[in-house]
Amino acid sequence: MSAALIDGKAVAASLRERIADDVADFAASAGRVPGLAVVLVGDDAASAVYVRNKAAACAAAGIAGHEHRLPADTSEEALLAVVLGLNADPSVDGILVQLPLPPQIDASRILAAISADKDVDGFHATNAGRLATGLPGFVPCTPLGCLHLIRSVGPDLRGAEAVVIGRSNIVGKPMAALLLGADCTVTIAHSRTRDLPEVARRADILVAAVGRPEMVRGDWVKPGAIVIDVGINRIASTPGRTKLVGDVHFAEASAVARAITPVPGGVGPMTIAMLLANTLEAARRHAGLA
Amino acid sequence: MSAALIDGKAVAASLRERIADDVADFAASAGRVPGLAVVLVGDDAASAVYVRNKAAACAAAGIAGHEHRLPADTSEEALLAVVLGLNADPSVDGILVQLPLPPQIDASRILAAISADKDVDGFHATNAGRLATGLPGFVPCTPLGCLHLIRSVGPDLRGAEAVVIGRSNIVGKPMAALLLGADCTVTIAHSRTRDLPEVARRADILVAAVGRPEMVRGDWVKPGAIVIDVGINRIASTPGRTKLVGDVHFAEASAVARAITPVPGGVGPMTIAMLLANTLEAARRHAGLA
Repeated sequence: MSAALIDGKAVAASLRERIADDVADFAASAGRVPGLAVVLVGDDAASAVYVRNKAAACAAAGIAGHEHRLPADTSEEALLAVVLGLNADPSVDGILVQLPLPPQIDASRILAAISADKDVDGFHATNAGRLATGLPGFVPCTPLGCLHLIRSVGPDLRGAEAVVIGRSNIVGKPMAALLLGADCTVTIAHSRTRDLPEVARRADILVAAVGRPEMVRGDWVKPGAIVIDVGINRIASTPGRTKLVGDVHFAEASAVARAITPVPGGVGPMTIAMLLANTLEAARRHAGLA
Repeated sequence: MSAALIDGKAVAASLRERIADDVADFAASAGRVPGLAVVLVGDDAASAVYVRNKAAACAAAGIAGHEHRLPADTSEEALLAVVLGLNADPSVDGILVQLPLPPQIDASRILAAISADKDVDGFHATNAGRLATGLPGFVPCTPLGCLHLIRSVGPDLRGAEAVVIGRSNIVGKPMAALLLGADCTVTIAHSRTRDLPEVARRADILVAAVGRPEMVRGDWVKPGAIVIDVGINRIASTPGRTKLVGDVHFAEASAVARAITPVPGGVGPMTIAMLLANTLEAARRHAGLA
């Protein structure tokens, strides 16, 4: 291994400390703390863990977490009413509806109902449009965290060749928009791309966000590249056990890259940090302090 | 010259005929014709020509053109009031505010005030977001016209390498989003791109939208590529005369490309045709017929 490890846990921890300081400053100026409402419908075990982690992170940063747990048989109309209530609640700066939602609820309708100015997940079409057109808005937490990690090892991205593998609305596309905003030459590759290894090999900055375990091999990586691995895939390891791997074959890629994120401990920890940052930013805007 | 000429004038003419038929069908179903409001502030000569051309194209297609001419010293508030009135007018399906606006008016504030559902120019952030996230909305007319021209010579774009030079909100970025939606591998290049000729040479589909006369030379073009030239630049020709050229060196590129748009007569004529198409689409949606 020759690549430097990009320690997302450490970057996220120092970011969260800085956010906590900024939250304290905000509270002193605004006379109130920022508030994040987290809505959980049903009792999906993984979702419950995520929501608990978010609540703990809010508490540690001095952000008020408003938790709303609704039964699994909640109707779409009832959930919509909750969202509209949170839109109108001045103590709530950010609203996060934990996905997935039960099958009787149209998630896209719920997400569209969240006020764009409280959409700290950045999933609303209005925020996607603000990002695309260079207006201030909210950017999805995962690509925003990736950009922080990239900048931690490569502060000047102007003219760099960036390749994003994956074109989801919540990672690939906003990631491409952010890298374009940083003056990279940006390529979006995906399942239809003809020669994915060759396209990947162009990249000074390679972001993999496809959800396919260890798809990106060592010979897909340009020597000296920065590699950001968004994938979190659980695969079988020794008999009867499993382990987490990314979309990148870590051992191979780290022999070639200049810097690389591990899985776990790379992109993952950044997501909650960016959620806190977005919530603080929402509070500043609502208070006229942005 | 070996490349096939992509005749935008002919493609646009046949499209406009089809739109006229569809407008007649719409009128028969909805009991009214689609309406496009065009707002012109001041007396910029070029703008007056554009507005006249749009009005004539509407009339030929059976679309009612509502022209609003306001004096050059119109205040932002007065123009805003006109826009809000048009938003509320059920006979108006599309609203187009001709740019540029006089200096006392903040164009971004005016464009943001147009109802996203009447924004047939596709300039509103909400429509940019809808395009980015794959929701139905309105796409800016120029890149939409380019996609039509590309499809006229290369109907199946899946897996093709597309390179867009230029990253404006009204051409480059939406063009990239459209090509991504057509399953191309898409690269956005721009003034900060390190080796623009090399990046351009990757392209099976090359779109130039930078506003620099004849910047794209023959050796930037991959043999067999489809070349779309969005630029319209007036340069000096013989002493005392001028001529229009694109962003592509036509003579050189047409020796290498498989198909290429001329300037004039390529992308230009498509823009008004797409404006009519967007206005008809808006009318269908407003009438619940989409």
